[in-house]
Amino acid sequence: MKSTPKGMRLHIGLFGRRNVGKSSLLNALTRQNVSIVSNVAGTTTDAVEKPMEMLPIGPVLFIDTAGIDDVGALGEMRVQKTRQVFDRTDIGLIVAEAGLWADFEEAIFSELQQRHIPVVVVFNKCDIAQPAAEHLARFSEDGVPCVATTAETGEGVLDLREALIRTVPDEFINPPTILGDLVPSGELAVLVVPIDMEAPKGRLILPQVQSIRDILDNDAYCMVVKERELRDALDRLKRPPALVVTDSQAFLKVAADTPEDVPMTSFSILFARFKGDLGEYVRGTMAIENLMPGDRVLIAESCSHHPIGEDIGRVKIPRWLQQYVGGKLEFVHTQGHDFPEDLATYKLVINCGSCMWNRREVLSRIMHCQQAGVPCSNYGLTIAYSLGIFERALRPFPSAEEIYREMAPEISSTGL
Amino acid sequence: MKSTPKGMRLHIGLFGRRNVGKSSLLNALTRQNVSIVSNVAGTTTDAVEKPMEMLPIGPVLFIDTAGIDDVGALGEMRVQKTRQVFDRTDIGLIVAEAGLWADFEEAIFSELQQRHIPVVVVFNKCDIAQPAAEHLARFSEDGVPCVATTAETGEGVLDLREALIRTVPDEFINPPTILGDLVPSGELAVLVVPIDMEAPKGRLILPQVQSIRDILDNDAYCMVVKERELRDALDRLKRPPALVVTDSQAFLKVAADTPEDVPMTSFSILFARFKGDLGEYVRGTMAIENLMPGDRVLIAESCSHHPIGEDIGRVKIPRWLQQYVGGKLEFVHTQGHDFPEDLATYKLVINCGSCMWNRREVLSRIMHCQQAGVPCSNYGLTIAYSLGIFERALRPFPSAEEIYREMAPEISSTGL
Repeated sequence: MKSTPKGMRLHIGLFGRRNVGKSSLLNALTRQNVSIVSNVAGTTTDAVEKPMEMLPIGPVLFIDTAGIDDVGALGEMRVQKTRQVFDRTDIGLIVAEAGLWADFEEAIFSELQQRHIPVVVVFNKCDIAQPAAEHLARFSEDGVPCVATTAETGEGVLDLREALIRTVPDEFINPPTILGDLVPSGELAVLVVPIDMEAPKGRLILPQVQSIRDILDNDAYCMVVKERELRDALDRLKRPPALVVTDSQAFLKVAADTPEDVPMTSFSILFARFKGDLGEYVRGTMAIENLMPGDRVLIAESCSHHPIGEDIGRVKIPRWLQQYVGGKLEFVHTQGHDFPEDLATYKLVINCGSCMWNRREVLSRIMHCQQAGVPCSNYGLTIAYSLGIFERALRPFPSAEEIYREMAPEISSTGL
Repeated sequence: MKSTPKGMRLHIGLFGRRNVGKSSLLNALTRQNVSIVSNVAGTTTDAVEKPMEMLPIGPVLFIDTAGIDDVGALGEMRVQKTRQVFDRTDIGLIVAEAGLWADFEEAIFSELQQRHIPVVVVFNKCDIAQPAAEHLARFSEDGVPCVATTAETGEGVLDLREALIRTVPDEFINPPTILGDLVPSGELAVLVVPIDMEAPKGRLILPQVQSIRDILDNDAYCMVVKERELRDALDRLKRPPALVVTDSQAFLKVAADTPEDVPMTSFSILFARFKGDLGEYVRGTMAIENLMPGDRVLIAESCSHHPIGEDIGRVKIPRWLQQYVGGKLEFVHTQGHDFPEDLATYKLVINCGSCMWNRREVLSRIMHCQQAGVPCSNYGLTIAYSLGIFERALRPFPSAEEIYREMAPEISSTGL
């Protein structure tokens, strides 16, 4: 029962041709203090995801790109499924046969470099051949860790682990806080958690659990309450809380029951910052102002669940957006790692809360939208905007509020 | 991400000989509004567990007992691995070939009847033969639902679903509350959640999440706080909470910081009641008083996790118990569904919080202990007893407290 959410794991993309020893290398790492939790088949890609506990790094997810394992597949490297692997790779691990570094390896290396993804190069099968001195010199010059291994015997595998540990991004070692900066140590946050039909028996959804944990990790504490009991819960306090966070679906009720001087926002907006780029999302959200009936809107969900009842992505957001726009919009839905190659036909892209994506994947999506010139938002920001409480929900985040004010000078600063 | 904890699913044991059509029947049920979530290989039995969503029942877990599929295996029916399936079966589904009801089926039927486990009988392959009239009459007389199916064509499968729905125990449809009766609607509970090394990044453990959810489901609300911030959190309230619940590991600190007139207990004690038999556990726990150095104690954990640091089952409980007893005890650990056939050599059995077991399995373990005359306790009660705060932790549960008072007349009723 003790497993780390997938989106919080360090994603290590494993690239290399067929028969270069990728599996042996993974097994060799496994024997050395790595425990395989389980194999999870990728939902929409050919890549196989292997969650592991790799001390001292902690929870990692190896993405085994068996699908692009030879030069033949190289021509396809920019197609969607492969791009999806790069889109979520925190560290790229390129495995080459000792002495063999050719166009295939170079293409992967250059894709990773362009994306500023840290790389570790492994020359495997060193019992058969030696890495070329020119290759070693080149990576050493570029400051790219380069390790010689013989996976079969375990030779060099400890060096590889050390290289991986040295390459772990700071962001993973000192992850950003979800709301720790908004709720000082010893302070109180109130989390408003509606229980709807989609909430599974005996569970809370992941962003709620992660927020509670983040608050505790920051030596603060929280009150967890449904929207109906919020007013009583606030009345019970001698001093108001430092922050009220609500599920976006209860935004209006919570905004009404939270005193105007108490900071208030939503889980989705917190996660826009934690796992994405809040400023960029604010800019993207304000494109709602220019939506016209008939425009195409992409709604991208990270998890595949059976929509039940008033599903937020299928029913509520379309309804609220269309009410705001005053006419029918054309909605397209994607799930999991799927994301359209051609974004140009969309007037707006709305990501979900992104429970199942890592931060790199969300940032990659934002990047693709920027490149295509398409505004990008998420559920919480879209709902807040459609319901007219955008400014209030942004108030806890001064730089995001600033972007809003610059873009909407005609809107009064007094809030609702 | 939206999945129900395994221990909360309705466990349907699927019994029947090889080639009787168990898999086809499961597939036929699947095609009718049942979605397979994933296949989970049993950790210690040969039974394969298949979690599904079966509307309108909700989350179920089929336990496919392929291991006892013919008369040859019948002689082994009472061996441990098979017993483990009966131990956790909420509904027994016996699949027989139409017209063929013999010793094998009768033995399973009688084992289920003895255990008061509701049964549904299926006569499959009705395209080949018809169920014998005498069998139908017999089950009809006994009030046991009996359905004729042809899984291959789907014939009768709807009837089977209806029979299963009618057979669902009341307890599953109206599950007992974890702490709803102790925290009235509109009231507040304080949950004390230490964050230790074993707590996975970004997570809370299951009993904590289930308790929060139970509180919300009962229109109450809660404060979630680490033990260090508890005193401040209580100070912030205009009125004290209806209940303080702590992780057993922080019992002493929480008992000290919670005013004497505020009811206080632990998650483990709540789960002793929710998933077991609190009264029986109280009786079992008091056997600690008679433990002698050298006695054997069984510590049974429902999940398999890598013990890290000061593991509660491996380090803390043994230490506290031995301090109480004043000498070395002999500890034996089991994990998952494993449970010794011969309990007689143990002086005490201590179950964990039971996250991964359903209620039926916990009650079966208590029953096996009773039959062997071995006292049975759980983590929270053992810790409370060893640390000298047993009575206070039981005070929220009058009938359990009564058992304690009867068994320990010499102990003052003024608590600590």
